[in-house]
Amino acid sequence: MKVYLDNNATTMIDPNAYELMLPFFKEMYGNPNSLHQWGSTTHPALREALDKLYVGLGANDLDDIVITSCATESINWVLKGVYFDHILNKERNEVIISSVEHPAVTAAAYFLKSLGVKVIELPVNEEGVSTVEDLRKVISDKTALVSVMWANNETGMIFDIKAMAELAHEFGALFHTDATQAVGKIKVNLSDVGVDFASFSAHKFHGPKGIGGLFIKKGLKLTPLLHGGEHMGGRRSGTLNVPYIVAMGEALRIANTMLDFEDSHIRRLRDKLEDKILALPDTTVVGKREHRVPNTILASIKGVEGEAMLWDLNKNGIAASTGSACASEALESNPIMEAIGAEHDLAHTALRLSLSRFNTEEEIDYAAEQIKNATQRLRKISCTYAYNPNNYK
Amino acid sequence: MKVYLDNNATTMIDPNAYELMLPFFKEMYGNPNSLHQWGSTTHPALREALDKLYVGLGANDLDDIVITSCATESINWVLKGVYFDHILNKERNEVIISSVEHPAVTAAAYFLKSLGVKVIELPVNEEGVSTVEDLRKVISDKTALVSVMWANNETGMIFDIKAMAELAHEFGALFHTDATQAVGKIKVNLSDVGVDFASFSAHKFHGPKGIGGLFIKKGLKLTPLLHGGEHMGGRRSGTLNVPYIVAMGEALRIANTMLDFEDSHIRRLRDKLEDKILALPDTTVVGKREHRVPNTILASIKGVEGEAMLWDLNKNGIAASTGSACASEALESNPIMEAIGAEHDLAHTALRLSLSRFNTEEEIDYAAEQIKNATQRLRKISCTYAYNPNNYK
Repeated sequence: MKVYLDNNATTMIDPNAYELMLPFFKEMYGNPNSLHQWGSTTHPALREALDKLYVGLGANDLDDIVITSCATESINWVLKGVYFDHILNKERNEVIISSVEHPAVTAAAYFLKSLGVKVIELPVNEEGVSTVEDLRKVISDKTALVSVMWANNETGMIFDIKAMAELAHEFGALFHTDATQAVGKIKVNLSDVGVDFASFSAHKFHGPKGIGGLFIKKGLKLTPLLHGGEHMGGRRSGTLNVPYIVAMGEALRIANTMLDFEDSHIRRLRDKLEDKILALPDTTVVGKREHRVPNTILASIKGVEGEAMLWDLNKNGIAASTGSACASEALESNPIMEAIGAEHDLAHTALRLSLSRFNTEEEIDYAAEQIKNATQRLRKISCTYAYNPNNYK
Repeated sequence: MKVYLDNNATTMIDPNAYELMLPFFKEMYGNPNSLHQWGSTTHPALREALDKLYVGLGANDLDDIVITSCATESINWVLKGVYFDHILNKERNEVIISSVEHPAVTAAAYFLKSLGVKVIELPVNEEGVSTVEDLRKVISDKTALVSVMWANNETGMIFDIKAMAELAHEFGALFHTDATQAVGKIKVNLSDVGVDFASFSAHKFHGPKGIGGLFIKKGLKLTPLLHGGEHMGGRRSGTLNVPYIVAMGEALRIANTMLDFEDSHIRRLRDKLEDKILALPDTTVVGKREHRVPNTILASIKGVEGEAMLWDLNKNGIAASTGSACASEALESNPIMEAIGAEHDLAHTALRLSLSRFNTEEEIDYAAEQIKNATQRLRKISCTYAYNPNNYK
């Protein structure tokens, strides 16, 4: 059996989104900016895809949703754009991020730090979450931007974006959320939460890899990251990736129709898998279930090196990760585990399991069994753990 | 009959490149950075695609070819990266570009100008080309970067990149070429021409839209445009767009096997079409044929507004443009025509025809006939042109 449980790293494209995009490769392949039928025949599908994004993200007509190549581009755009618009030669000189942001946010913020910007990192509690109280302690009228993720990529923990955006605005600061791990998993209504910018990536909600977007609240200026022709109202240049835009719109539409399913069926499967892991001795999971998106588990299995577990599971057809795929080629400890203050050896035992609507009950039962078997095998040979066979009956 | 003659705006994906990428959407859909089979099964195809790029562009093993989302991203990366690495807080403060660069180069350079960089634009001769002598007049030890296109998007004129790169290096400056319109049309050997950076985009050589690359000569530093995870050796973050990378590699491989065909068959069709346009009274074409890539014609048809011609041709199934698609939604005069000093009314008569290997002899004969008919129809109603039916026998 093959079981893909690494959906926070990337997802399979939705078959319907896939079918919808195919005609735009060999048939309707014109440049949408062109004044002929090869260009103009792409317009209805592009408009429809953008409509799906506006509806699916709860954006208003006057907000901008700008297509980018991925959330990483969107995030870099916001941080560097805000630098040029509100920090360089201006009075505000601080950017606040949480200490568990995706590397795109952290690395872009550190780049700004190299330019003289003060970067403040919010601490996280034992659930791996920064709160509005953490933000209140450090925000000031020097703060240009607060950037806090909506849901964490490793734990699935949900942050109180709405309260933080409100607080940022009280201090005249802008608020950006990396919504990459929230979109398609929970209801995302950008108008309701009142953020200024929100980044997202299609391949986390069964769209293709290499396409994403940036929500920009009505009327906000943002110096482009990609200067050039007059694409996307001058916001972001580069010939439009028509097939992927069409697929992204459809993938979001479908994901949003499946939110109830996600919150019932996927959550139940996730909880079942989690229960079976927690039934093993000396295992923990980060964060309360009800505070997380429905598909994610970040477990720690004492005495079992995360990478050893991955290899064992992989041999038996199961895809998992030790944390963000963006850094998983390096055998490092899990940064979330470090951030919440786990002991160093525990930080090397992280196992992230992230489900999708394509997982079945049989797959989850099989995965639970394999995790149990792998735990036994690996603890037997662990030099840091005293194995007792009676615990695995 | 339908005839697509707007291949400098974008191309149809090559059917073989298309087939090769499809399995990476629904089957081998893992994140290449992941430590399981869904990730690792993508590696052979990715390696092969990168090999095709290295071979196809004449890069050496120690050079970097970094995947980006398009040439516009690559171009912005070079100009802004060089700004941070070699201009900000350093002694060099000048960037030199030609006055007929793609809007991506021009707009990125103007952005640097807004930060205090001196931007020098090289003039062009009557063929629309800047020469090494033009560069010699303005280059100095204050020059940080020279950025000149390899082939012009509107005229197809080829620039002497090799001589210019040599001259730039004499002055200790870096040299970037926007090779977008050269790759796949003429032999591009980046090692031979000795440039430091070269930008390209797959959709100009029958690859997909939304993927491109940046060549970075061995050992050169370039501050990332997209900071984040450790993708592409830390050069450019963002989850890899596996299907498009696979398709781009294959599209380049095929394009390079077709270069002789391009230089014989496509050139002959192009010349045939050009001859028929020049046989009409009061028509001109910019630049000598032997100085151009084999597929491009930028014609001026006196008394005929370019957009009127496009609409007429479009009605009869022919796709053409008045110049760069990146600005073609605006009814403006052709900037190349302006740059070479054409009279203002001529600059509004530009008609760009760009062929591909998928065009047939019959299509070209049909297009020539339609252009003749449209010229007659539109000159009859032109208020700036005295129509004489005897000239169209």
